[in-house]
Amino acid sequence: MPELDRIESEESLIATYLAPLAAQMPGAFGLGDDCAALAPAPGQDLVLTTDAVAEGVHFLPHDRPEDIAWKALAVNLSDLAGKAAKPVAYLLSLAFPEAPARTWMAAFADGLRQAQEQFAIGLLGGDTDRRSGVPLSVTVMALGTVPAGRMVRRSAAQPGDFVYVSGTLGDAALGLRLHRGEPGSGAEGDGWLVARYLRPQPRTGLRDALLAHAHAGMDVSDGLVKDLGRLCRAAHLSARIELQSLPVSDPARSLIARRPELEELILTGGDDYEVLACVPPSRAAAFEELAAAGGTAVTRIGRLDAGSGVAVLDAAGAPVRLARAGYDHFAAPGT
Amino acid sequence: MPELDRIESEESLIATYLAPLAAQMPGAFGLGDDCAALAPAPGQDLVLTTDAVAEGVHFLPHDRPEDIAWKALAVNLSDLAGKAAKPVAYLLSLAFPEAPARTWMAAFADGLRQAQEQFAIGLLGGDTDRRSGVPLSVTVMALGTVPAGRMVRRSAAQPGDFVYVSGTLGDAALGLRLHRGEPGSGAEGDGWLVARYLRPQPRTGLRDALLAHAHAGMDVSDGLVKDLGRLCRAAHLSARIELQSLPVSDPARSLIARRPELEELILTGGDDYEVLACVPPSRAAAFEELAAAGGTAVTRIGRLDAGSGVAVLDAAGAPVRLARAGYDHFAAPGT
Repeated sequence: MPELDRIESEESLIATYLAPLAAQMPGAFGLGDDCAALAPAPGQDLVLTTDAVAEGVHFLPHDRPEDIAWKALAVNLSDLAGKAAKPVAYLLSLAFPEAPARTWMAAFADGLRQAQEQFAIGLLGGDTDRRSGVPLSVTVMALGTVPAGRMVRRSAAQPGDFVYVSGTLGDAALGLRLHRGEPGSGAEGDGWLVARYLRPQPRTGLRDALLAHAHAGMDVSDGLVKDLGRLCRAAHLSARIELQSLPVSDPARSLIARRPELEELILTGGDDYEVLACVPPSRAAAFEELAAAGGTAVTRIGRLDAGSGVAVLDAAGAPVRLARAGYDHFAAPGT
Repeated sequence: MPELDRIESEESLIATYLAPLAAQMPGAFGLGDDCAALAPAPGQDLVLTTDAVAEGVHFLPHDRPEDIAWKALAVNLSDLAGKAAKPVAYLLSLAFPEAPARTWMAAFADGLRQAQEQFAIGLLGGDTDRRSGVPLSVTVMALGTVPAGRMVRRSAAQPGDFVYVSGTLGDAALGLRLHRGEPGSGAEGDGWLVARYLRPQPRTGLRDALLAHAHAGMDVSDGLVKDLGRLCRAAHLSARIELQSLPVSDPARSLIARRPELEELILTGGDDYEVLACVPPSRAAAFEELAAAGGTAVTRIGRLDAGSGVAVLDAAGAPVRLARAGYDHFAAPGT
């Protein structure tokens, strides 16, 4: 194998690959200072979130660098999307096991640039480290804006609200299994499912609809049941979800038809990066209309009520029992 | 060995140990939402920085959790201090090799609380992950404020500016060697040097002096020569430093007297977390006075000029040659 052409210093990595990503960003100072400066426009709040992706946990060792970069940004922008925040900028903390090869780093920077262009954001600052023998990790801190005091919260949901979800559920969790080499349906849709895992699409188009009509919202990243459970706890409410109403893509249906044991991933699989929204019935039609105008499909999947917990009901109205509630980093496997 | 009492879930870790650290922070929503919200006061810019500390790179496996927590915050607050920013809040991204023991996590949270109290900041949000077999890493994103447009930059230094540094240099790099078990001077000062490594004290007291009188500033974390070199490159200037003028603590002098091979750490050792300031001669007296009023000792160590590069001159005015310029994460050892 030829010797890889590795980047020789932290400063060269920043100057060559990262500084160009900050060039259009006021307050990033071309990554040539210790800190960045930023002020939201008058009447706006900054919305902040941080999420890390690590090799072996959130991506696989041989995933393409542009996909890893995209995903690191997308999982953060999805958090912002669930809060109706308009993405603005991000900080990036990279920990490499060894100095990366130039070709790898160029492709990684390209993935960041693709996301920057799609979501109109820029790189504001960051940090690079080397940790011998430790798999790559990418920590992003993303910043967005909302009108002052208008961040869409979990806790502001109300009894009687309809529960909506954007897009379709379970695709990425199914795609991950295919990406790992498990058998698929053999149809073209298999590739689409893998792309749903590798390239999540944050639902930023839902912003106007959320701001105008939603009582509450959040993104779904650890599985519908688990994340809706979090929203219910924050709002001190319960939710009833109708299994039949859940939006499932055709490729997901094809795969589940072949491998019915995977069906539960619609409810509990991670990596959906869709948005849950809680909307009062009186605003439901207007919410759906504004969501469609923003280019985002939404589906009504249930409603909130007094009480606690999330119940999933089958076509006969009987509660569905789940083997696993969703993803938890600390829980032992199988729990 | 008794079975450790480990934390059983991510949500319990957040609720028990981290949420109390966010209780006083408006916009943190008690860590019960996906994102935080924040707006600087009118007329203020936010100043943002991110730095990670990892086991085996920035701290040792058996370091006390409260010291690790302190350091993770302090290295970020030191960046803010060098920019004359008043620390306000932070986000925290934790990656554990396995669910931490309750006693460990309680001590870690205690270290965060100590820093929060000393610097009047609060926890705004974060992320926790488990990465099997990967040593602990702690990534902090810190936020501060400056009057709009007034972040103290590297690049605004001017020819003729005096170069000042706060505190004393080399203590932490010496302390790290003692902490690793290398021989010390045997005097009480050895413990003080180790504390300088484990518990850096960000120079936030220098803020008023920097804002009022400094053209430029930054913190020293990778060694004086390396960091001053960065400032010179950003400002397109050169610096001449007088070796005799460098502030060295008594404990450092004692240790260097025993182990003269360590002397160069004053110029090139990392982890100082002191502040470099570039001040025009006409403001030097006022700068020193305001620094003293803020409780921070500063020492004039040289001056800036046209040209490029950093020259360190000995008592006879001859340039000192250095074996190693400073710390670089990617460079091979010994370069």
